[in-house]
Amino acid sequence: MKIALAQINPTVGDLRGNSKKIVDFAKEAHAKGADLAVFPELCVTGYPPLDLLENGFFIEAVQHTVAWIAAHAPPEMGLIIGAPILNEGPIGKRLFNAALLLEGGRQVGVVRKTLLPTYDVFDEYRYFEPSPERHIVEWRGVRWGLHVCEDMWNNEEQAPYHLYDENPIDELAALGADIFINISASPFSLGKHDRRNAILREICREHGLPFVLVNTVGANTEIIFDGDSRVHAADGTRLCCAPSFEEHLMIWDWEHDTAPCPVRHDDIEDLHDALVLGIRDYFSKTPVFTKAILGLSGGIDSAVTCALAAEALGPAKVVGVTMPSKYSSSGSVEDSRVLAENLGIAFHEIPIVPAMEAFGGMLEDAFAGTQPGVAEENVQSRSRGLTLMALSNKFDYLLLSTGNKSEMAVGYVTLYGDTNGGVAVLSDVYKTQVYELAHYINRRAGRAVIPENTITKPPSAELRPDQKDEDSLPPYPVLDQILRHYIEDQMELDAIVAATGYERAFVHGILRSVDRNEYKRRQAPPGLRVSLKAFGIGRRLPIVMRWNRDVVREIAEHTEAALHE
Amino acid sequence: MKIALAQINPTVGDLRGNSKKIVDFAKEAHAKGADLAVFPELCVTGYPPLDLLENGFFIEAVQHTVAWIAAHAPPEMGLIIGAPILNEGPIGKRLFNAALLLEGGRQVGVVRKTLLPTYDVFDEYRYFEPSPERHIVEWRGVRWGLHVCEDMWNNEEQAPYHLYDENPIDELAALGADIFINISASPFSLGKHDRRNAILREICREHGLPFVLVNTVGANTEIIFDGDSRVHAADGTRLCCAPSFEEHLMIWDWEHDTAPCPVRHDDIEDLHDALVLGIRDYFSKTPVFTKAILGLSGGIDSAVTCALAAEALGPAKVVGVTMPSKYSSSGSVEDSRVLAENLGIAFHEIPIVPAMEAFGGMLEDAFAGTQPGVAEENVQSRSRGLTLMALSNKFDYLLLSTGNKSEMAVGYVTLYGDTNGGVAVLSDVYKTQVYELAHYINRRAGRAVIPENTITKPPSAELRPDQKDEDSLPPYPVLDQILRHYIEDQMELDAIVAATGYERAFVHGILRSVDRNEYKRRQAPPGLRVSLKAFGIGRRLPIVMRWNRDVVREIAEHTEAALHE
Repeated sequence: MKIALAQINPTVGDLRGNSKKIVDFAKEAHAKGADLAVFPELCVTGYPPLDLLENGFFIEAVQHTVAWIAAHAPPEMGLIIGAPILNEGPIGKRLFNAALLLEGGRQVGVVRKTLLPTYDVFDEYRYFEPSPERHIVEWRGVRWGLHVCEDMWNNEEQAPYHLYDENPIDELAALGADIFINISASPFSLGKHDRRNAILREICREHGLPFVLVNTVGANTEIIFDGDSRVHAADGTRLCCAPSFEEHLMIWDWEHDTAPCPVRHDDIEDLHDALVLGIRDYFSKTPVFTKAILGLSGGIDSAVTCALAAEALGPAKVVGVTMPSKYSSSGSVEDSRVLAENLGIAFHEIPIVPAMEAFGGMLEDAFAGTQPGVAEENVQSRSRGLTLMALSNKFDYLLLSTGNKSEMAVGYVTLYGDTNGGVAVLSDVYKTQVYELAHYINRRAGRAVIPENTITKPPSAELRPDQKDEDSLPPYPVLDQILRHYIEDQMELDAIVAATGYERAFVHGILRSVDRNEYKRRQAPPGLRVSLKAFGIGRRLPIVMRWNRDVVREIAEHTEAALHE
Repeated sequence: MKIALAQINPTVGDLRGNSKKIVDFAKEAHAKGADLAVFPELCVTGYPPLDLLENGFFIEAVQHTVAWIAAHAPPEMGLIIGAPILNEGPIGKRLFNAALLLEGGRQVGVVRKTLLPTYDVFDEYRYFEPSPERHIVEWRGVRWGLHVCEDMWNNEEQAPYHLYDENPIDELAALGADIFINISASPFSLGKHDRRNAILREICREHGLPFVLVNTVGANTEIIFDGDSRVHAADGTRLCCAPSFEEHLMIWDWEHDTAPCPVRHDDIEDLHDALVLGIRDYFSKTPVFTKAILGLSGGIDSAVTCALAAEALGPAKVVGVTMPSKYSSSGSVEDSRVLAENLGIAFHEIPIVPAMEAFGGMLEDAFAGTQPGVAEENVQSRSRGLTLMALSNKFDYLLLSTGNKSEMAVGYVTLYGDTNGGVAVLSDVYKTQVYELAHYINRRAGRAVIPENTITKPPSAELRPDQKDEDSLPPYPVLDQILRHYIEDQMELDAIVAATGYERAFVHGILRSVDRNEYKRRQAPPGLRVSLKAFGIGRRLPIVMRWNRDVVREIAEHTEAALHE
């Protein structure tokens, strides 16, 4: 039996485009001799459809679309697709997240998702009722252990606890499955490829069954899916693997394809490819943009963002703008110009001095008697943001925001200034990773696309004379280490101090900055998610709040005192 | 027995402040002879604590805080408080949302929440495991039917379907409860008071038991809680009701307080009071602001926002700024000045002409050969936004954004311009409601605080000569009717056309505008929620998407055709 793994890139809500793509892939799979073509989770709607799922009309349209796919796919083959289906019962959420088996124009099997991720960027229990049962799908003499995404992830025996009661994998094996088929919309984060290798190897070995995983590819707003679809043999060996970050149709011959797949992944390459895909899909799936635009400061963040954009869209669709003020070094303009030349993109120079002078005059009375400070610095950043938005509005350019995760974390950004944009390309990439990306981009190009000077000079916002980032922030390797512990590892002050050996007051100050700048992040553009904990929809913290780790010790001491009074 | 309903206003994360408040209210209740003081859901942490609940150190601090409360409350009385508690089991979410009964320095009873709202602004299943059981708390000879918030809301027999399997109210009655006690964090929305009246009357009549409901009060970021705590008798009669939108300690004598409570609510008064509380709490719970600032355009939105702010903070803490351009009518500046005088707030005039000229010059080359349009209009709005942010940054002012729900819905706002601010006061208030508020404010003051001219002149953004909102938008009563159907009622095109009788293409265009402007709303400040469906965290739609209701008919037609081929 030949199984086609159809790693497609659906667009959220694009029922017509997605269904056409599904049928096209099915036809190609059929032409290549496949008996069954397997598509990703919710491939009909794209993932995540969010509150479109609450629109009854949308769900009706999905039903029509599924019927259309069934009617147009080659009738001789089977298709497994993912779609929301109605919960017909009187109780519970109104939908199930389902895998549908189609054949000969009809639906011949259905499996509903049991484990509904409701954490980080996932809100599945907002929409879906968990399946009350597990069952085998029998089709063409095979007992298919078909299930959906998260249903395979409660199997990790090494976890300190389990999030769910059920383990669909164990149940399907006990019910006599011949093979596992998982349809997923499993987002990329650094290292995810290796985690998939490990968990699939373990499942196959435990149950002695082969495993087919078909994951979606593409970016939808902030979430990037890498694909990484694969087949593992019953002994855990990985047999074939689709390329990451692109659409792919892979045919697996169950009886004959038994050679191991040697593909290895490299973190920095994955990061690069994920961001390129994120930019490309944000741009191409939104049908209004003519080009992308960004401000070039001469610094590393805008340079890397620009190189990624040129890779994603082609240099003809990228516009760089340098906007010097009186505090800009001549090197900044020159480095930006060289970068633009290296990449072959359009380049404009628009000094912001007239705007600074205008606002200086307008605010003179109100600011009388005060010392220049953050307010004046922000006027510069916002004058640049305003200039870029004017160009964006005039020519339908997508404005790319260039701030990195380290800055976004501690609030070293200007709201309505350098945060402006439709998408924040680097907002989940720490500054130290931005340098790694710069080196990778130059290595890959075989030349200094990103000027050497941009990489080696000390980072500076250039908002006042001789300003350096390190005047306000610790060195980035130190800052990033602490931020990773706090944001990704969700460690608290004492644990971070113990792990790093830094001064308690120093670490405390950084965590406090992170907490205090939630209001800036709430209004920031969606950022491309590449880590296990990105700012944005997967990290939800109150803005108005008074959580303060200092009071804890006091409360504990008071309580002790009170108990011994 | 005397029961105290302690309708308090906790601040999210403020464990020290909240616990002190709880103990203070308990002492006052004890002084007034109460045997039991009942506090709202999650009163120890404030609601919603969001991802603070994922911080293990925060949960430890909550445990200390609960111990501190137990140790400091009057030992002779009982306290029912709400707090997250650990799920000690090996499976499921790590917390329960619990009601704790404290007495004599110890915890003597605990009830875990069964029904976990995971829709609209609620994400409780993100954090909490549902209680696997229901039980009666026996204390001082009474069988208490204690439960938490949503646990009472699956009782509505008139609902077309039930969201949950369990009905804790029925179970508690069957287990022999003498009285229901519900601790809530149940947000305000227009009409909520009447819904509470109806459901409590029904529950009491069905089970022949009295009902004590203690709801939290106060605003935490975008969510406003109205309090509206009350007692209903076993026959459904409402016996006593706390004032809405303020803290209150109410003592109910079970045996003797049997007279009905006559309080009636008025929608426009509730709306006014909710917004005033929203502004006040956003300001006072964030300890950095010295004053609030807003731009005054001479229009109704900024005038109403300003009047609400003056009411919330006192006129000495409000600063109004008029920023005329060459397109501003002289009336706009004058109306703003009169408003400021009427309210007694500080007032500045900062013309934006220099900024417009500066950007005009800076963009001259890039814009050569194009016609003036939205890009140029937005420069004005953004120059105003920049000016206000400069004042905000310089003097630690909270910038209030003044856009209404009608504008936010169709995108008739400038991102990084008039949307700038820490909180969007009117973003859940339709334009027609803004007029109602203006009339109410003037009626209440007994004089035209908001100038008559501001109320009667045709709405205009004044971004080009003789511009009127109705050049771009339908009349607001028409627009708001359609928007309500789409946003609050979640109706689709055909249903709205049928309900309103408007042209299909006309309604279609409005819905399309709503869909297309999601990207602006994603970066808008948090808005004060006063309806059942506000923009913001309770309405989650993809930005990058291609859902298009037009394709549905085509898909349906194609499917029919294919099925009959």
